[in-house]
Formats: sequence, C-alpha cells, structure tokens
Amino acid sequence: MSLPHLTEARADLVREVEVTDEHGVRQTLQIPAERDLTVYVDRRELVTLMTLGARPEWLVLGYLRNQRLVRSPEEVESITVDWEVGAAAVRTRSGIERIEERTAKRVVTTGCGQGSVFGGLMDEVNALALPEARLAQGQLYAIVNAIRLQESTYKSAGSVHGCALFRGPEMLVFVEDVGRHNAIDTIAGWMWMHGVSTDHARPDEPFVFYTTGRLTSEMVIKSAQMGVALVVSRSGITQMGHAIAAQIGLCAIGRATNRHFYCYTAPERLLWQPELASAPRQAG
Amino acid sequence: MSLPHLTEARADLVREVEVTDEHGVRQTLQIPAERDLTVYVDRRELVTLMTLGARPEWLVLGYLRNQRLVRSPEEVESITVDWEVGAAAVRTRSGIERIEERTAKRVVTTGCGQGSVFGGLMDEVNALALPEARLAQGQLYAIVNAIRLQESTYKSAGSVHGCALFRGPEMLVFVEDVGRHNAIDTIAGWMWMHGVSTDHARPDEPFVFYTTGRLTSEMVIKSAQMGVALVVSRSGITQMGHAIAAQIGLCAIGRATNRHFYCYTAPERLLWQPELASAPRQAG
Repeated sequence: MSLPHLTEARADLVREVEVTDEHGVRQTLQIPAERDLTVYVDRRELVTLMTLGARPEWLVLGYLRNQRLVRSPEEVESITVDWEVGAAAVRTRSGIERIEERTAKRVVTTGCGQGSVFGGLMDEVNALALPEARLAQGQLYAIVNAIRLQESTYKSAGSVHGCALFRGPEMLVFVEDVGRHNAIDTIAGWMWMHGVSTDHARPDEPFVFYTTGRLTSEMVIKSAQMGVALVVSRSGITQMGHAIAAQIGLCAIGRATNRHFYCYTAPERLLWQPELASAPRQAG
Repeated sequence: MSLPHLTEARADLVREVEVTDEHGVRQTLQIPAERDLTVYVDRRELVTLMTLGARPEWLVLGYLRNQRLVRSPEEVESITVDWEVGAAAVRTRSGIERIEERTAKRVVTTGCGQGSVFGGLMDEVNALALPEARLAQGQLYAIVNAIRLQESTYKSAGSVHGCALFRGPEMLVFVEDVGRHNAIDTIAGWMWMHGVSTDHARPDEPFVFYTTGRLTSEMVIKSAQMGVALVVSRSGITQMGHAIAAQIGLCAIGRATNRHFYCYTAPERLLWQPELASAPRQAG
C-alpha cells in the first residue's frame, strides 16, 4: 500500500494591517492569516475548516483520521488543495462507508466550543489503552524550553494556537493554527504521512503533546486516541479534560512555564526530579 | 406576548482538584466546572453544549437566537434545565418551522474552531446595518478597568472566557464560560429576557462587547447580528475577524490592557482622546 498523494499548497501565514494605537498613531501590524477550506470527500462536501493554512493537506488527512472517517492513510488516494477556490478535494481508494450516516450523526452535537467532536468521541474513551510512558522532569523542562525558543507565527502575529509532538525531549513537529483542533489534527496527519506511530515508543522516551491552549476534553481525548499518554500546556485544564485524563490515566500537565508546572493527573507518569525545580515556593 | 418561563438551575462553577507542583508538593487548586447540556426543542434533540453552567437558561435562549432558530423571545414558552440529567427542555409556542432542514444544513460546516457557525452566518453579513455609535477613549478605559476589577471564575480558577455587554462605560452583564461562544450566546439570551435592545441606543453611549478571547470571525458576526458596533478584547484579531469588521464597519479594538489598545477597524467610531493615553511609545 502507498501513502496518499498530497499537493503542497502554500499561502501567506501573516498579513499586514494598519492599526491606530492609543496615541492615535498609525502603525502596521501583522495578524495571522485565516482562510476557509471546504473539504470534499469523493466530490461530497464534508466540512468547512477555518485555518491558518500552513499545512492544509496534513490538516485534512488528520481531520479525517481524528473524526474516525478513515482508519489508515492508505485509504486515501490523494488530497488536492487549491487556495484559489478554498477547496480540498479528497479522493479515497474505495470510498468511506456510511459517510452520510456517520457525518449526519454529528449534527446533533454541533457548534464551536459547543459539543462538536465531543459527542462522537466519548463513546470510545473507555476503550482507549495508553502505552507505558514515563517522562523525566528534566525532559519536561527541555520541552518547555524548546517551545520557548521555537520561531512562530504567534511571536510575530499572535492570535494562533501552537501544538507540538515530542518524543522525549525531541520536538518532532510544531504546528500552529487559528484553531487548536486544526493544529492537533494537522499533527495527526503529519504522523500518518511520516510513518510515526506511538505503538513502539520507548517508555523512557514517551510521546508528548504540547499545546498552548487549554487542556479541554477534546484535547485529552484526541491525544489519547493517538496513543499519547502525556499532554503539556502553558494554560490550565477544564473539568471534563481533568475528569477524562484521570479516568484513562493520561498525564495532564498545565501552567508549564519556565520551571513551574502543575501535574493534574497520573503523576506516576512523571519521573520526579524536584532538584531541577526552582527554589521552593509557598504552596497554594 | 410574554417572556419565556425559565428555570433557575444552579451548579458549582468551580471544582477543587489535587495537583502536584514542580517540587513534588501536593496542592489543592480550583478549576472551572464543565458540564454537558443537551438541548431538546419540543422533544427533539438539537445540540449538546459544553458549558460552565452559570446561566444555562440564558445560554440556551441565546443559542437559539444566535443560530437564528427563533426570532423573538415570545416564540419560546419555557426552558427547563435539569442538571441531574444534563438536559435543557425547550418548549416553543408554535414550533420551529423547518427545524430539521435548518439544523441539518449545518452538518456540512461542522466542527469546533472548524467552520461551525461561520457557514450559516456569512450569508447575512452583508445585510447587517450597524447603528450610529461613537465611543470616547475615556469610556473605553472605563470598560477595561471595569473588567479588571470584575470578580470572576477566571481569577479563581482560570481557563474560562469572559464576555461582557456595556452601554457606554456601564457594564450591563458579565458572563463566563468554558467556550467564548457560550458566553456571547448567554448575553444574547440575557438581552432578550431583560428587554435590552440595541435599536435605540444613544450614539454617544453605544453598546460595546468585551471579550477576553480573540476577535474571530464568529465573534465579529455575532456582535454585529446583535446590533453592537464596537467589540473590545484583551487579545488580538484573526484575519477573517478583521476582514468582516472592516467590511461592515464594526470597530474592533484589541490588545486592550491598562491604557494601551489597537483599533483595528472603523477608527471613526472612537472619539479619540490621546491625552488620556500613557506617555508616547515607539511605534511598531
């Protein structure tokens, strides 16, 4: 079997705009690009994604993967993105069975920050088995530092979410998008295209997801679906994210900046090295 | 005609969790609550919203309003929220015409941060006519200061978006939720229940939306739909948000902290008082 053929559609990631600051002074700022990409699967319109547009082919492939519409990259023959018309044409090798039914099901749990992915995925949560994984505190600090040093659209334009996949302290891929779900979907597509599987990771060099966004239920579920047992964020966690991480034993680490962090769940997945932390602080 | 009867379902907005910090010290933190609320309209399941749960009845009413499923509050007879089963039962006076068709349409533009509301709303953007409105820079500073002083779940637990409606410098309502769309929808519901209309606002005391989140296309469109011509955020703006705000002449103000801000679009809607700003800074 062969991997899908992908175009390499490119587009500007930032755009300059004229603004007026509080002194009434005109300035030129960069803002992140944002464009709509309508996905057609075998000529049937599936969804419209609002995206930064950095890696649209990986995004579409990862979206199909994380929505459980395709089970392996080989099922996809090609993904052709054309920014002229804002369209991604997906051709499958043998179609997606019951696609109407499986996509129609989602309409009852639709909306941004309002249900969407959650409904369909919760059913699978209990079936998830996470790999053995133990991250050293020093590796965690290396991850946070790598993100700090990473050149990004965020640094130049702000207003995007960053997401990265690490193996131990090594950054494998870094993706930004206007939506954090797009960023994690893009990584899912990248993993398939690069044959990166979490199945045979060394327990002492586990796969780790980093996100600049909150640890929501969807982020936790998507990470677990991709076999990643540790998720790190500079932000906090929501109750559903916390409940699901605790339920499936996923290690959720938040407020990770410099040498500070909170381990919300599964602390047994961290190899604690408190001597690497900064000077003790007041608890609370 | 009478307003809908709403229950006043209440639930805890924060939850305490045990965490371990970088020193290996156990601490107790508060995180925001997050619960799923499945909305049934005349016994038909419509959508599942993930929400903080502060004002679920206003959220459901505002969701129906902003999704254009009901045109006036009088169309709704009652909204009954029961957290025991995570359900909101909406009873309409005479049904919602073509509800299957109008909700099914959204399936092609579904997904969190991935199209959702956008598809259906863009059609209406060009039809939107914003009211005459001019906000004084001093009023803007009063808004930013009021938000700074506002007690919030964010301050105690983080990880929620805040949204507020102002009339001039006066805060009318402040709402937080795990999703910023829920927050703005809740305000839409509050406006209907309190008979607050943007139709007859004084141009020198305009309605203003404040959001802690980014100025995305959905936020700009929803504000415009509700007749609010100015939107303020402590965050930045996305390209679609910028393009739509510029197209419809909505004044989008971002990076608003202390006395600093950027006016991205429609600067003519601000009464500039640069003498109120801090000492001049280097441009760029």
